[in-house]
Amino acid sequence: MSVINLELKKVVDDSYDIEIGYELEQTLIDDINAGLVNKIKKFVVVTDSNVEKLYATKIVSMLKDNGYGADLIVFPAGEESKTRQVKEYVEDRMLELGHKRDSCIIAVGGGVVTDLAGFVAGTFARGIPFINYATTLLAAADASVGGKTAVDTPLATNLIGLFNQPKKVYIDIATWKTLPEREVASGMAETIKHAAMSDSEFFDYLYENMDAVFAIDNDVCTKVAEFNCKTKYQVVMKDEKESGLREILNLGHTVGRAIETVSGYRLLHGEAVAIGLMAQVRIGCALGFAAQEDVDKMKKILEKAKLPSEIPEYIDKEELIKKLYTDKKVRNGELRFVFQKGTGAIMSFDDGTNFAKPIHEDFVRKIICE
Amino acid sequence: MSVINLELKKVVDDSYDIEIGYELEQTLIDDINAGLVNKIKKFVVVTDSNVEKLYATKIVSMLKDNGYGADLIVFPAGEESKTRQVKEYVEDRMLELGHKRDSCIIAVGGGVVTDLAGFVAGTFARGIPFINYATTLLAAADASVGGKTAVDTPLATNLIGLFNQPKKVYIDIATWKTLPEREVASGMAETIKHAAMSDSEFFDYLYENMDAVFAIDNDVCTKVAEFNCKTKYQVVMKDEKESGLREILNLGHTVGRAIETVSGYRLLHGEAVAIGLMAQVRIGCALGFAAQEDVDKMKKILEKAKLPSEIPEYIDKEELIKKLYTDKKVRNGELRFVFQKGTGAIMSFDDGTNFAKPIHEDFVRKIICE
Repeated sequence: MSVINLELKKVVDDSYDIEIGYELEQTLIDDINAGLVNKIKKFVVVTDSNVEKLYATKIVSMLKDNGYGADLIVFPAGEESKTRQVKEYVEDRMLELGHKRDSCIIAVGGGVVTDLAGFVAGTFARGIPFINYATTLLAAADASVGGKTAVDTPLATNLIGLFNQPKKVYIDIATWKTLPEREVASGMAETIKHAAMSDSEFFDYLYENMDAVFAIDNDVCTKVAEFNCKTKYQVVMKDEKESGLREILNLGHTVGRAIETVSGYRLLHGEAVAIGLMAQVRIGCALGFAAQEDVDKMKKILEKAKLPSEIPEYIDKEELIKKLYTDKKVRNGELRFVFQKGTGAIMSFDDGTNFAKPIHEDFVRKIICE
Repeated sequence: MSVINLELKKVVDDSYDIEIGYELEQTLIDDINAGLVNKIKKFVVVTDSNVEKLYATKIVSMLKDNGYGADLIVFPAGEESKTRQVKEYVEDRMLELGHKRDSCIIAVGGGVVTDLAGFVAGTFARGIPFINYATTLLAAADASVGGKTAVDTPLATNLIGLFNQPKKVYIDIATWKTLPEREVASGMAETIKHAAMSDSEFFDYLYENMDAVFAIDNDVCTKVAEFNCKTKYQVVMKDEKESGLREILNLGHTVGRAIETVSGYRLLHGEAVAIGLMAQVRIGCALGFAAQEDVDKMKKILEKAKLPSEIPEYIDKEELIKKLYTDKKVRNGELRFVFQKGTGAIMSFDDGTNFAKPIHEDFVRKIICE
């Protein structure tokens, strides 16, 4: 018998910048020219059918004009594209186009595009670099920090994927002007979540400035994007692998994720999260973690953000309850929820070591089915 | 405009042990009982249809007897199973069986099983731990060190995957007794590669003790497993992400990988590598990197290891040449080869910064098609 010890300890530096601004295409090209992705000459711009004509083809042209190889890969817009099959399609196109480990992916789009393209980059030739050019408020609020990439499967959302950090993220507020109002609203759900869990002042600021958000006021939107990135970064920095603290980002997502799936994606992610936020504050109120005033504040801000707060009639409640068990926070077969503590803080349990509390499904059923 | 810098620097410790011995099932269980995978109570044993009855079901029973949850997932044996579709199948079975991020995968089998299961582990719930229980000489020679996991696609072998280190590797020499002779031979190809590139003494030792290897002599086989792990570890430790030095492990793999695919997997991986080893030493001899004596030594040791050294008649040579361009070492459209320097050392180029040399396809054609 013989034992060989492999010492594989090392320092990994995944640091990157998020740049928030108005029309950042030229900044992206300037950064690449200045060596953002060292030595790389070939790019694959991955986008969806909505964003293709709006921004992606322009970026491809600009890359070519600057002497780089640049291919465009487009898949149909929508959460339905976040699958292993679409990942395969992108991989096969990249191989057909002759890309190898010396290429770089630029994801141009919202959260679905950045999640999928980041996952492709993580497993193509065992990892190539990628850059996110975010064109939605939701991507700015959620997908730009944390390095979470994933696809959905018929049995669970976001369960197949990996942690993979981009080389840089661009949040282009000019692109929000082309978003349908429903998409802006959907993006606001994650912003409201961040405020509800960490900053009651910003929660009030959001409520007061909601109209300016919907008018894509540059100053207010920059503030919203900054707040989201900084809030999420503070959590992620302390807990990159989501062992404990990071679960607080799951506020509203226990019911949210499940209802998104059960709705067959009739609900946008943010709309589902909005319903989930309402569900957790109501359950939390029943448990004494929040007051009726907090429930009312949540309902009012969701209304102002043109978001739903009630479970739509067409949702099969029992199917929803069943779907809750596919949540990643489930442990030993028990549902676990994250709760806001009043407004602007988060509940912790077990002397601050735990941020999700086991809740019996009957209790959940009572609140969400009443 | 606003820039947020995300500092994501950290120390990652992926160290692990490789244990080489005879019948290690109980050692595996003892290690798990002693906390090898901290707090985990649920295991998924992933294996193929050859290994299932031989070792995997036994390990599942032993896990259950020790109070753990244990499921068995089996896929058809053979390189043909190393696909994204089989990865999906394993993922879907895991989800159906209720596995989440608090499960651990145990891969029981050869290189195909450990490559595929390690890849599944890397992207299931964005990464769960895995343990390799290697039951082939090839897994001992190749798959136990380096953390390379991958699947094949119609357009390229091993191009979709990731670097993922196991928690521990067990190399059970008792399992080699159940290997068909052809599999033992196939495993010897990687061993011969390691000796050819780094140790002329061990190259001679192998030649002298080849019969003992095929008789699965415990001492000789332990020595072979140790030599392989240590050789590969020395290279991998210096270059975990395969930027330069690690390419030397690709000796014989330029032609090897291509011919394996073009043969439609009629050739086992090691058989294809054997042909590739012969090809590089012959090309290297023509370029003055090796002597005719080194060519003869390679031919003799491959014969003694019951391995092919010539390209089979049924291989379409032009298809083979074309397939060479899917090699990961290709840069700027040029084929690149790694060469042995005499026997027991490796060629380096550009003042030791480069270990693969661009070779024009006409030159390759002349040598391998003559």
